[in-house]
Amino acid sequence: MFSSPWIPFLLFVLSTSVVTALPYRFPRLSPIGEKFLHHSRVLELPPSDDFKTFYYNQTLDHFNYRPESYTTFPQRYIVNFKYWGGANSSAPIFAYLGAEAPIDDDLNVIGFMTDNAIQFNALLVYIEHRYYGKSVPFESRDEALRNASTLGYFNSAQAIADYANILMHVKKEFRANYSPVIVIGGSYGGMLASWFRLKYPHVALGALASSAPLLYFDDITPQNGYYSVVTKDFREVSETCYETIKKSWSEIEAVALQPNGLSFLDQEFKTCRPIGRSFELRDYLWSMYASAAQYNHPPGYPVTRICDAIDGAFSVNGTLGKIAAGVFAYRGNLSCYINEPRNETETDVGWRWQSCSEMVMPISSDDDMFPPFPFDLGNFSRYCNGLYGVPPRPHWATTYYGGHDIQLVLQRFGSNIIFSNGLKDPYSIGGVLHNISDTLLAVHTTNGSHCLDILKANETDPEWVVTQRKTEVGIIKAWISKYYADLANYKQNKTF
Amino acid sequence: MFSSPWIPFLLFVLSTSVVTALPYRFPRLSPIGEKFLHHSRVLELPPSDDFKTFYYNQTLDHFNYRPESYTTFPQRYIVNFKYWGGANSSAPIFAYLGAEAPIDDDLNVIGFMTDNAIQFNALLVYIEHRYYGKSVPFESRDEALRNASTLGYFNSAQAIADYANILMHVKKEFRANYSPVIVIGGSYGGMLASWFRLKYPHVALGALASSAPLLYFDDITPQNGYYSVVTKDFREVSETCYETIKKSWSEIEAVALQPNGLSFLDQEFKTCRPIGRSFELRDYLWSMYASAAQYNHPPGYPVTRICDAIDGAFSVNGTLGKIAAGVFAYRGNLSCYINEPRNETETDVGWRWQSCSEMVMPISSDDDMFPPFPFDLGNFSRYCNGLYGVPPRPHWATTYYGGHDIQLVLQRFGSNIIFSNGLKDPYSIGGVLHNISDTLLAVHTTNGSHCLDILKANETDPEWVVTQRKTEVGIIKAWISKYYADLANYKQNKTF
Repeated sequence: MFSSPWIPFLLFVLSTSVVTALPYRFPRLSPIGEKFLHHSRVLELPPSDDFKTFYYNQTLDHFNYRPESYTTFPQRYIVNFKYWGGANSSAPIFAYLGAEAPIDDDLNVIGFMTDNAIQFNALLVYIEHRYYGKSVPFESRDEALRNASTLGYFNSAQAIADYANILMHVKKEFRANYSPVIVIGGSYGGMLASWFRLKYPHVALGALASSAPLLYFDDITPQNGYYSVVTKDFREVSETCYETIKKSWSEIEAVALQPNGLSFLDQEFKTCRPIGRSFELRDYLWSMYASAAQYNHPPGYPVTRICDAIDGAFSVNGTLGKIAAGVFAYRGNLSCYINEPRNETETDVGWRWQSCSEMVMPISSDDDMFPPFPFDLGNFSRYCNGLYGVPPRPHWATTYYGGHDIQLVLQRFGSNIIFSNGLKDPYSIGGVLHNISDTLLAVHTTNGSHCLDILKANETDPEWVVTQRKTEVGIIKAWISKYYADLANYKQNKTF
Repeated sequence: MFSSPWIPFLLFVLSTSVVTALPYRFPRLSPIGEKFLHHSRVLELPPSDDFKTFYYNQTLDHFNYRPESYTTFPQRYIVNFKYWGGANSSAPIFAYLGAEAPIDDDLNVIGFMTDNAIQFNALLVYIEHRYYGKSVPFESRDEALRNASTLGYFNSAQAIADYANILMHVKKEFRANYSPVIVIGGSYGGMLASWFRLKYPHVALGALASSAPLLYFDDITPQNGYYSVVTKDFREVSETCYETIKKSWSEIEAVALQPNGLSFLDQEFKTCRPIGRSFELRDYLWSMYASAAQYNHPPGYPVTRICDAIDGAFSVNGTLGKIAAGVFAYRGNLSCYINEPRNETETDVGWRWQSCSEMVMPISSDDDMFPPFPFDLGNFSRYCNGLYGVPPRPHWATTYYGGHDIQLVLQRFGSNIIFSNGLKDPYSIGGVLHNISDTLLAVHTTNGSHCLDILKANETDPEWVVTQRKTEVGIIKAWISKYYADLANYKQNKTF
């Protein structure tokens, strides 16, 4: 019960120092969680010598012929030749489609590429998404992000057209014309991979779309789906933990309304600086639970870590003490918590635009571990319009890519996509979880988390993720075998 | 044998008065031939009351979020409800995708729609292509066509996105959410129809792509294919006719070089005004032969008409007299010929831009009934750049839509497209003439001409075109039956 209405301007990142408040709760859409967390899977290794960087002169606007549209910018892609079967061998190309971040980390993180290259003799290609990293149009990053006039070219249709151009160029340059291309992506990048196979079947033979919530548009998936899975994840680990969290929101609110209540919260949670409003704390917690559920990877299992701390805290500390114990356990030993200074990342800035233009995912919460939090499209549009001067196009993703009745539409159309998911990942609820046809396949694990299958294999990996990866490799092998048979037949009997 | 090199600036239309010379020979890409020809199939009937006109507020640029991209313009579409099964009946929608002309004539010409609507209980929708007819962005047609800055939005990707928006709107407005949509188009419109099914399978269940030369890009089809078919058409009708035409070019040239040679040609061909250069005559003839072959419809059969006149002319008149007799027979009884005054049509103006931007079809002639005429991409690009200030993107069509190795690419991807052709149509050589899979089907007739199958059925139609249309209707019926079975099953067992 809240005495004041839940303030609808909340954050989707863990810290608040310089991040603009957003009227929505879009959790991070990336294969990996926050880098600075000690349980993150990001290994800070320098890329090995096997990786070679190239730049492609990319067209600014593929779908327009105004003189400005012809402007080009250097787009980065990175190639690993180490395992490749070589020119004219028709050995496969694995292409990782970059998402809403610089491509650098992906070289180390996306183990699916390097772990499997050797058995496929595959050429590995990693392509950076436009407007991220070193692939920024206009004179500078500042200029590119200045306003809607320069941001207008920053969208998924242009991005996958970029990928088509680069992959056709790579095939030509490296004499790999008949090499089957398998595109791989995770989260937003997984959506791009599945859309790429659907829109450019002449460029990619197949796609591995890991944890791609491509049905989380236009209310295909119920708005409260994401947070209902977060709730389920916590509840399955511990009913008492779930209960504690559920009742904590009103307690925070009640304490905050008391004289010196905010100072008490500062002490209790060891904040780095005094919190100005209770929503700052609530928002932090909200995001932490979401992130823990989404990136609930082995062996750390952050949901378990949080709940163990909450359940194990001395009950003399009350609900808030338990919640604080959860925070400390999740974040590890730090000098302070909640509002640590943090700079905006490229992902923060870029995804804010992308979700305010076309990647509009209506996510709300409704009667679960979290207080009710509606998604109001009108508010959201006004907010985005205020930020950029242009409103979102909330129906465009389903107009261009489809999604409604996907089973009916694709059961006799398209082929060779793996939709992989881990069901503990709250975004999995917006993914494809059932086979659509013999070649549009859903591969999921009950205990898997966001993009776990495409991360680097690890000795501590549980059997079920090892099996999931093997299944995916087996499916891709079958596509490629069939393709080679088709190719041989085609070359012999070419009629046109 | 030519004493001077063949001048590369030639026309692709029958008359020259105000049409800018083009360095290429792209024959007309429309379901019907020149309207003013007496054997044209266009019936000048006013559209019946069954047709109701609507306008949709269309977005200027679907793939860009600059503030200007959000501008809207009224796009015309015309609906015929007469045969429709009604709201919530899931009766089919036949959607004719407009091509490079105002939509008006299509209502009477595209008989496939009206002839078959009754047996399908189909709703008929005709959508006008952006920048034609009443569907022009910006303040006026003049403004829209002013330069590349306003023409830049005039391309096929934007056009099919328009169609997706309108068809989704129509389904919603007329409560036809589960109505299967069959898109139908001819020539360039046929390419749009096949591309639409490939890019928007969630909007259209299937496509009838009549006489769509979608492989005439990027040298997939040999450049000389078009004119080699024209040659074959004439030769099959009459070897002597073919011989006469073949030798006429050098005779025209020789006469033109003599004193008063051009006046002699004026007299011989009854020109409307003195021809300035021999190429004016040569170009006219060239286009006439191409057009006669392409639109060699029953019962008129213009190739036969021309050849009968050429072969039947008194030999005392020599080669040129025979050629002139062919012109008179083709054009009918007029007061003068060759350079009749003629205004540029919307198609002339619009297609010039489209072929100078993305629809670059390299067509040449090489050692057949016509003198050699190369297609030089460099010249062509310079020419287009000179006209519009932006160069063509000759590889974009195959990058976005594919085409290379189409059989290999699509044999396990996509479904429900009929590629129909008449093999007498020179453009058929750039079409899909072999089945790609069980549901990507080539339906062609040996004696058919350009888009004949989708024109109005007629008592004089030969059996083979009647059969072709029946085959097409049968295939579409099978798609729809299968879809209804899928739909029933889907509604019962919906899993997501």
